[in-house]
Amino acid sequence: MDTIIFEKRRHNLKKALAERKLPALLVSHAANRYYLSGFELHDGQCNESSGWVVVTADGPDYLFTDPRFTDAAKRLWPEQDTLIYTSKKHQEVGEFLKGKGVTAMGFDPTVTSLYDHEGLAPYVELTPVRDVVEGLRMYKDEEEIKRMQASVDLNHKIMRDIEQHLVPGATEKEIAWRIEKMFKDNGAEEMAFSSIVGVGRNAALCHAIPGEDVIRDGDLVLIDTGCRLNDYNSDQTRTFWVGDKPSDRFREVLEWVQGAQQAAIDMMRPGVSLHDGWKAAWDYFDKRGVAQYFNHGLGHGVGLETHEPPRMSRVAKGVMEPGMIITVEPGLYWDDWGGIRWEHEVLITEDGCRVL
Amino acid sequence: MDTIIFEKRRHNLKKALAERKLPALLVSHAANRYYLSGFELHDGQCNESSGWVVVTADGPDYLFTDPRFTDAAKRLWPEQDTLIYTSKKHQEVGEFLKGKGVTAMGFDPTVTSLYDHEGLAPYVELTPVRDVVEGLRMYKDEEEIKRMQASVDLNHKIMRDIEQHLVPGATEKEIAWRIEKMFKDNGAEEMAFSSIVGVGRNAALCHAIPGEDVIRDGDLVLIDTGCRLNDYNSDQTRTFWVGDKPSDRFREVLEWVQGAQQAAIDMMRPGVSLHDGWKAAWDYFDKRGVAQYFNHGLGHGVGLETHEPPRMSRVAKGVMEPGMIITVEPGLYWDDWGGIRWEHEVLITEDGCRVL
Repeated sequence: MDTIIFEKRRHNLKKALAERKLPALLVSHAANRYYLSGFELHDGQCNESSGWVVVTADGPDYLFTDPRFTDAAKRLWPEQDTLIYTSKKHQEVGEFLKGKGVTAMGFDPTVTSLYDHEGLAPYVELTPVRDVVEGLRMYKDEEEIKRMQASVDLNHKIMRDIEQHLVPGATEKEIAWRIEKMFKDNGAEEMAFSSIVGVGRNAALCHAIPGEDVIRDGDLVLIDTGCRLNDYNSDQTRTFWVGDKPSDRFREVLEWVQGAQQAAIDMMRPGVSLHDGWKAAWDYFDKRGVAQYFNHGLGHGVGLETHEPPRMSRVAKGVMEPGMIITVEPGLYWDDWGGIRWEHEVLITEDGCRVL
Repeated sequence: MDTIIFEKRRHNLKKALAERKLPALLVSHAANRYYLSGFELHDGQCNESSGWVVVTADGPDYLFTDPRFTDAAKRLWPEQDTLIYTSKKHQEVGEFLKGKGVTAMGFDPTVTSLYDHEGLAPYVELTPVRDVVEGLRMYKDEEEIKRMQASVDLNHKIMRDIEQHLVPGATEKEIAWRIEKMFKDNGAEEMAFSSIVGVGRNAALCHAIPGEDVIRDGDLVLIDTGCRLNDYNSDQTRTFWVGDKPSDRFREVLEWVQGAQQAAIDMMRPGVSLHDGWKAAWDYFDKRGVAQYFNHGLGHGVGLETHEPPRMSRVAKGVMEPGMIITVEPGLYWDDWGGIRWEHEVLITEDGCRVL
């Protein structure tokens, strides 16, 4: 992405910091770091950081990383604002910040380890503050919406193309791998998450790992999958019937699920509470006496991460606003039968919403 | 894996806890959790835990997770020792532990967020303690060595098979994707990490992301790749020459790199310090006047994670012990030429070592 985009985002963050009277912010969560700097979308492992960015309210911004990324840092960041730390990371970062006059900064306690907090505390005053960058990432700009649409378009295509492969004899694992190949052969960088491919009763498991279970004629198959394309994730679910004639129960449950989805989409627009989005789907199910089989939230934000704010659920706070992209994914599940889920990604527009 | 294996590991941990006078340990890092329980090898995202395990020194062990994993938890854990938490995770976990009589436990400050620490602190006394589970994971048992060998064997095969595809016109990205397909088509669950495929000068970048650079005749190509097979990761590097006759420089640098690798392997056995392993390779380079181009550690442990203890580097502490599996991966790099790295995985045996 053009570096001007990252500058613009840091500019927005600087305003947010000034409003909160925070002189700076430590950005350690990978997706936030990348969003603001273009530096490394991923950490190698969850216990192995690729680096930190410190954004100040009214001065330069700083990049901290280890020697593996010296070259990547050079290409992105002014040398005087970069620190390549070695074995005494906290001391080196702390003294560098002190030298630059950064004596206080916010940090997100949900993604900052106690170890890092204690290591930095002697050098800089640390104020816990949550979701500052996530709060910016919730509102997708024009370029992001374009990329999200491209990612979702590819997801639509794969959902169309996979149906012909849902034939008796294929295993869940084979289908999952075929989906991945289709995504990658069509340009995706990686999967957005491990695909769920659930045959029959496995479709009732919220978090089924595709296994050796074989598709038979007359089975339902739930597929929840997505890819990362040009950095941005998609996330969709479809539930297919294998064979000529779907059972009456399948058709009825599918109608309910799609009905609940439409009920939510029909009312999604700026100003509507995120709780009420969930409630619209829940009410739809409740009227049909099946709300107890809808046992999860209705949706979540998608972007650089598959799961990001906002949430649309029973306990959700806040309202829908233009630029949010939220999944709408009602489902009904019975342990002894299986389940049906259907998932779209919906952009909140100035005066309503648009299914991507 | 058989549940008896997880029980045995928890049994070993219980002994380690008793020795440290710790009544219990909070296990939140995904690989540690899986190692001890068989529950979820991965977290969905680094900021999205799949759950925790609390192992006690002399009582039952507890599993904590959210409703997505209710079914997975049921299949693994006694119901009375399982808590499915909802929106007040800390309070629910804290009160559950209190009810079970767990009033104090250790936790790893490097992987525990300040938020989790503050949330649990009102309910249970928390003692920071590092690398307890990693300390057990360093020593691979018979079954783990078998699985590591299988994973490494597949890696050897892919390194042999990929050579025919390193032809003029192919891009780094295409090669990386071909490697991934080969691994998955041969049964791997996933890549151990994003493959490095570096053509020419890109081979000098420690962390090159495979791009659109095209292989030409007379190029060198560095490939660093690995897979997860039956849960266990492999990690290997080879540097290939494309074309009939490797340049003199390529042959000379390759000889140095392989010589340094052999020098380290020749002295790897129980009791040798991890620092000295690195030093053997460094000395070999130093004698040839090129040690300054060897700008990283010599190796790291591999297992459930690609990077795990122990390390073999300038600053490494501790000694080699039977059951450790460590990469030996010296390399020499020149920005204006490229680089060569060669990587084996080496098991420390009772009286020496064995290249897997």
